This record gives sequence, structure tokens and C-alpha cells, in this order.
Amino acid sequence: MENLKNKIDEANQKTIEILLKGEPLWIGDKQAIDVLPNLKKNMILHAGPPIEWDRMANPMRNAILGAVVFEKLAMNITEAEQMINSGEVEFSPCHNYNAVGGMTGVTSPSMYVHVVKNIKFGNEAYCMPHEGGSFKGLGWGTNDEETINHVRWMQEELSPVMDAAVKLAGGINVKQIIARAMQMGDECHSRCTAGTMLLTRFLAPYIMDLDYPRDVIKRVFEFLKKHDIFFLHVIMAAGRSIVDPAKDIPYSTIVTTFARNGIDFGIKVSALGDKWFTAPSPKIKTSFFSPKWNDEVATHDMGDSSITETIGLGGQITVCSPAQEFFLGGNYESALRKTLDSYKISEGENSDFAIPNLDFRGGPIGVDIRKVVQTRIQPTVHTATAHINGGFIGGGEAYAPILAFDEAMREYAKKYDI
Amino acid sequence: MENLKNKIDEANQKTIEILLKGEPLWIGDKQAIDVLPNLKKNMILHAGPPIEWDRMANPMRNAILGAVVFEKLAMNITEAEQMINSGEVEFSPCHNYNAVGGMTGVTSPSMYVHVVKNIKFGNEAYCMPHEGGSFKGLGWGTNDEETINHVRWMQEELSPVMDAAVKLAGGINVKQIIARAMQMGDECHSRCTAGTMLLTRFLAPYIMDLDYPRDVIKRVFEFLKKHDIFFLHVIMAAGRSIVDPAKDIPYSTIVTTFARNGIDFGIKVSALGDKWFTAPSPKIKTSFFSPKWNDEVATHDMGDSSITETIGLGGQITVCSPAQEFFLGGNYESALRKTLDSYKISEGENSDFAIPNLDFRGGPIGVDIRKVVQTRIQPTVHTATAHINGGFIGGGEAYAPILAFDEAMREYAKKYDI
Repeated sequence: MENLKNKIDEANQKTIEILLKGEPLWIGDKQAIDVLPNLKKNMILHAGPPIEWDRMANPMRNAILGAVVFEKLAMNITEAEQMINSGEVEFSPCHNYNAVGGMTGVTSPSMYVHVVKNIKFGNEAYCMPHEGGSFKGLGWGTNDEETINHVRWMQEELSPVMDAAVKLAGGINVKQIIARAMQMGDECHSRCTAGTMLLTRFLAPYIMDLDYPRDVIKRVFEFLKKHDIFFLHVIMAAGRSIVDPAKDIPYSTIVTTFARNGIDFGIKVSALGDKWFTAPSPKIKTSFFSPKWNDEVATHDMGDSSITETIGLGGQITVCSPAQEFFLGGNYESALRKTLDSYKISEGENSDFAIPNLDFRGGPIGVDIRKVVQTRIQPTVHTATAHINGGFIGGGEAYAPILAFDEAMREYAKKYDI
Repeated sequence: MENLKNKIDEANQKTIEILLKGEPLWIGDKQAIDVLPNLKKNMILHAGPPIEWDRMANPMRNAILGAVVFEKLAMNITEAEQMINSGEVEFSPCHNYNAVGGMTGVTSPSMYVHVVKNIKFGNEAYCMPHEGGSFKGLGWGTNDEETINHVRWMQEELSPVMDAAVKLAGGINVKQIIARAMQMGDECHSRCTAGTMLLTRFLAPYIMDLDYPRDVIKRVFEFLKKHDIFFLHVIMAAGRSIVDPAKDIPYSTIVTTFARNGIDFGIKVSALGDKWFTAPSPKIKTSFFSPKWNDEVATHDMGDSSITETIGLGGQITVCSPAQEFFLGGNYESALRKTLDSYKISEGENSDFAIPNLDFRGGPIGVDIRKVVQTRIQPTVHTATAHINGGFIGGGEAYAPILAFDEAMREYAKKYDI
């Protein structure tokens, strides 16, 4: 037993080192079909663990239908539905393609994705660009003409400009921006205001060197000005690129994925490879943007954005962002308490992601399923709330369901014959 | 005596209301000669209380000489010195011209100044644009060719672009940016990173609509990207515009100016009008940028930037910026303590400038000389440190000298026959 404990400690140490060493460089934006390994033209990706069409949350179904129309596989939503019923369109989790996706996570072959390379380990990861903080978006599960036209604009103007600017800059060091943003009130999940501004300011001179008309550049700047959250999806791709090399470490009890599809909340554990351990996706404690919305019309927790918590951001470092905690109905004390709880269930501390309010103590990183199972402290996950019929209606927090950890622990015990 | 106390309380209340009601709108950048009331072509302005040439700190003298050359009143520094000795060039505090200036504060007639209008009261105030965080600058007291050429570039490119963009935007609501920046780790004096980024992002789309060549715009973006501190001088002009209507309120014991010239630290008090109360400018507790510098080569506290503390920013709200406090050798606890001390000597709280780390409690505003004299708590002032021969060598904090408050209190007692 002592021997086993040593093996686990060593494995976890190794896992943490891999997480800490990751150097995500955003190298450009490319169409998914050109970079996601083996993606097929009739494949639509979604967030979270695998799920069948009939069990999917409404917003996710809406977004998939919208993506089928966006791809011009179907003329309209009705036709898209027929194609899906006839099996002409396939689905798969983003996670099966080295990708992650926000909220519904819907990503289709011709959509652009941020390409982030972990230059320490050589692997790449992908995330579609955030559509912005408006009510509508495929990510939020709407699929009307306005929604689809916006994604087309992103495809035609935003992503090509970002791609060219990022390349001209020689890539963007994502960790550096996260580190600075954490000094500026971002917890780097629900709040990415500073990150988006740091990016905008960094890229602006490069953008001036691009051969794009002024009105196009103006629209890109307007988008970046309006949507504080844009940088989140770059962080998500970076997060995915950081965790991938930390998978499949024998004996490691460190979580390598938190992800939700609106129905199931799934986790992966390093030693247990790509196997999902799921539990019902929790209800979100939402701060709704309007009194006309409430829990009755709220989808449960959804999206791959919890990859940020997997690398020690978002709900793991609430004290970095008292403004976010206040918006969620908490206060400084609750933000501090949640962060101290994160340390209790995490294996490492990340001096690259230092917390100013804790005198620059490195943030917690690497949730250990043993500690969750023992302490019963559920990792806090920041999130957004989608209307059950689609649309962005609030921000919130959820707690990773303990059942998923218990199940993973049982599988782990079985595997190692404990 | 009870009657007097009531009169003071009422006067102070009125003063605080004026400070709280101020609505500074940055309306553009203009050449000083065109906007500063009665400025003469041979007049060079400087920071802090009045001071004669012979008593001036070296960096201030250097900057004045540089400004004489910049203005082409003299061909070179030697000639500039001769003109000054012969009395052909005059000096005056910025404060005599509704202006404020950073560090040496040197402002000459053809330099651009930010024009900020307090739209609630109709008055305008001015501050020259910040030259940036490089070692050299007239503000830091260097005056070589590189220094002067940079100010020329600002005059030729930066300020005209900013002026046009700010106008096109319909002006910039400075309070809104301060409020957001305070949620992003800025104490809005030594740290203006978020403010500068908020400004950059806000103006970028407008800048794209201007009729300036791309290379000019690129240089402006590069400047804004490199110099986190740029927005400080807009805040300073805003601060000055906020305090001016709060002057000359009979019986008011509220400080309306903190300012230093490197030799003297001066304060003004509402009921006592524009009279300066001075004490020796304190030594700065500096975090030097290089071990080659130390207190031996450090100019004492200098500049009008402490107008920010006058309106409840900077050293008054250290807990907004744990990163700044950490840089200065403190920690979260010391930042918190200093902020709580500020409340003890301030008359009001400003809900427009709310502090996230204090659950959005309004920041302290309006230092009351009675409270300083009674508690002996010296207001904390954030500052930068200039080399005794010119140059930016560190950031720091200083404490407003108690003697200035004691002297003001004596004058106040005399005036009201207490």
C-alpha cells in the first residue's frame, strides 16, 4: 500500500510538471476541416461527453441545426432536421478531435478555429472563436438568420484578420496574457475582459500592417471592443493543449478534463485515459440578466469552457476576480474561501498563474480525484447560462458533481486492484 | 463652538457633493497656448507650488531648459540657460493655469495638453500628455535630443490623432474608465494599465475612421501598447477639473490640492482658497528599477500627479491594486490597512469609484485636514522617482508631510478666529 501511495505521488508529480511546463502559443486561425485530425465534412462537433440527438439539450440541438445550415448542407432548419433524422449528419464531442467548444460547443468543418500549439510538447489544440456576449449565438443555441450571418461574418472577416495578425506577431504567448489578466481582475473563464484588451492592444499595430480595408479592420476593432469575453476561447484551446500531454500517466489521479453537454457533466482522469466519468449536469446558480428569466428556463451546466478549471483558472481562482464573484451574488470573503478550497483539492501550485490578492501565491492546479472524494469539496466551475430554447441569459457558477469523482475512483481502484 | 462645528460639517458636505458630482469629459487635445488662460509665449509651467530657479530640483531645471529648446526660443541648452539667467523666460506652477503636470510637470506654450471639461460645472482643466514609461522624458528631467524629438513626435502625430479620435467619439467619460479600471487592478495613479487599455480599445474603431496614414496610426497604437501609464495624465486633468469647483467653500476643511515640486510639498484647502501650505517634499520609498540606483540619486517627491489622491485615487485606494503594492514591497494586508487609514482621514465615500476588494464599498474621497491633524495619519501618495540628474528610475510611495496640514490648520484657526 505504501508502494502504491508512492507510485501515485510520483505519477501526480509528473502530471503536475507537465501541466506547469506547457507553453501554449496561439499560432493562427484555420478552418476546422483543415486542421482537426480526420474531421469529415458531414461531422458536427459539440461540447461535453458524447450524447445522442434525442437526449441532447435543446440549445445544443438548435446549434447543430444552425451549423448544418451554415455549412450549406441543408437549405434551412427543417431540411437540416430531416438530414439529421436520416443519419446524413454525424455528431461527436469536440474532445474527440483535440478541440473544445464553448457552451453548445458546436463546431462545423468550415468554421474557423483558434490553433494553439503547446510548443513544449508539440501538440496542437483547437477552439472555435467566441461569437461574443450577445443574446444570440450558435454557442448559446440560437440558429436564426442573424445568428448564422454573424458566424459568416466571423468566417469572412474576423478570423482571417486575426489569423494574419497573430502570424505577423509570431504567435501569441497565451500564458503571458493569462498571467497579466489575473493581475487585472480576470479569473480567465467567465471574466476575460483584461485578456481581450491585452490581446487587442498587442495586435493593433500588427493589424495596421495587414492588407485589409479600413472598414474591415474597424469592424474587427468594434467586435473586440464590444465583447470582453473573446479571449476565453483562445484560453480554452490553450487549456486543451496543456492537458493533452498530461493524459495517460499511469497511476495519476489528476483530472485532465471537466466538460458538460447540458445533460451530463463528465470528467477524465489522467491514469484512466480518455474514458468519461459522468453524472447529471448540475443546475447552475445563475445571475440572470433580466428578471424575465429564472431557473425554470435555464439549461443545466453546458460547455467545454471548464477546461479552464482543469488548468486552475475560473472557479478555481475566484479571488482573482471579486467583480465576478460580486456579480454572482458573493463577496470577497466567499471568493477567498472558494479559492482556499481549491487548494485543498489540488495537487500543485502554478507560479506562472499567481494571485495578486494572495500576495502572488501560485494558483491551485491539478484537481486530485482522491482529495475530492475524501474532502467532498466539489470543484467550483464558472459558467454561463443558456435559455432552454437558446440564448444567453446569465452568468453563474456550478459545482462539479461528486458522483463523477466517486465513479472515477471506483474505476481507478478496479484498474489498480486496490 | 457647536455652531462652528455645524458650519464646518455643512461646508464639508457641500464640498464632497461637488467632488462627487463632477463629470469630467475629455474633449480633445489642444496646444497649451490656445487653451490655457493668459499663457504667454515665454512662459514655461512646472509642477507643484511656486519655486525659484535656484531652489529647483535638477530634473525640473533640466526639463525647463529642454522645453525652451523645444519651443525654439533657444538653439540649445546653453543658450536656454542664458535666456533664463537674463529673465527672458518666465516660470509658473501649472496650478496657476488650471493645469497639472506629471513629475517635473514642464509644459510649454506649443505643447499639446489634454482638455478635460467638468460638464457638471462648466470648467476646464489641462494636463500635458504622458511621454511614456521610458527612462527619458522632459517629465523625468532629461533634455537631450532623443527626449526633445519624442515630444516633437507627440506634438506632430500622437496628440493630433488623439484629439481627432476623442472628438469623433464625442468625448471620453473619464469617470467611467476610472470605475472600470478600478475593477481591473488600477489604483489610477502609478498603475493605469487597465485605463490605458480601456481607452485604446474604445478609441480604436474611431481611429480607423480618421484620415491619417496607416503608419501614423500604427505608431500611435505602438505607443499606447508600450506605455501603460498614458491614461494617468487624462485622469490628472480630470482630477483638476473635479476639484476646481470645490475650492473656496467657506469653512470647508477639505484638501483641494496635493502637489510637489521635488523640494516642497504643497496642499491647498477649500476654505483657504489658492493659498499653498508647504513643507519639505518627503523622501520617496522607492522600488528602483535597477540596483545601480538608490536613495542617494533619488529626487524627492515631485509632480502634480497627486491630484489623483486629492480625488480619492492612487495611494488612497491601494487595495485596488495589490500588484502595485507588491511592487512597492508591501502585501495585501498593508494595502488593505492603508486604504482603511484613508477612510479615517476622508470625509466622504465615492460610490462611483467602488473598490471590488471591499465588496464595492465606495472609495474614500475628500481628505479633511482636521482628521489628519488629529489622527496624525499622513495621506499615502503614490509616485515615481526621478534621478537627481533626470531620468525615470523607480516607482514608490510617499506620505504627505504633516507639517503642511498643521500649518493649514493654524491658518484656518486664524481665519475663523477659533
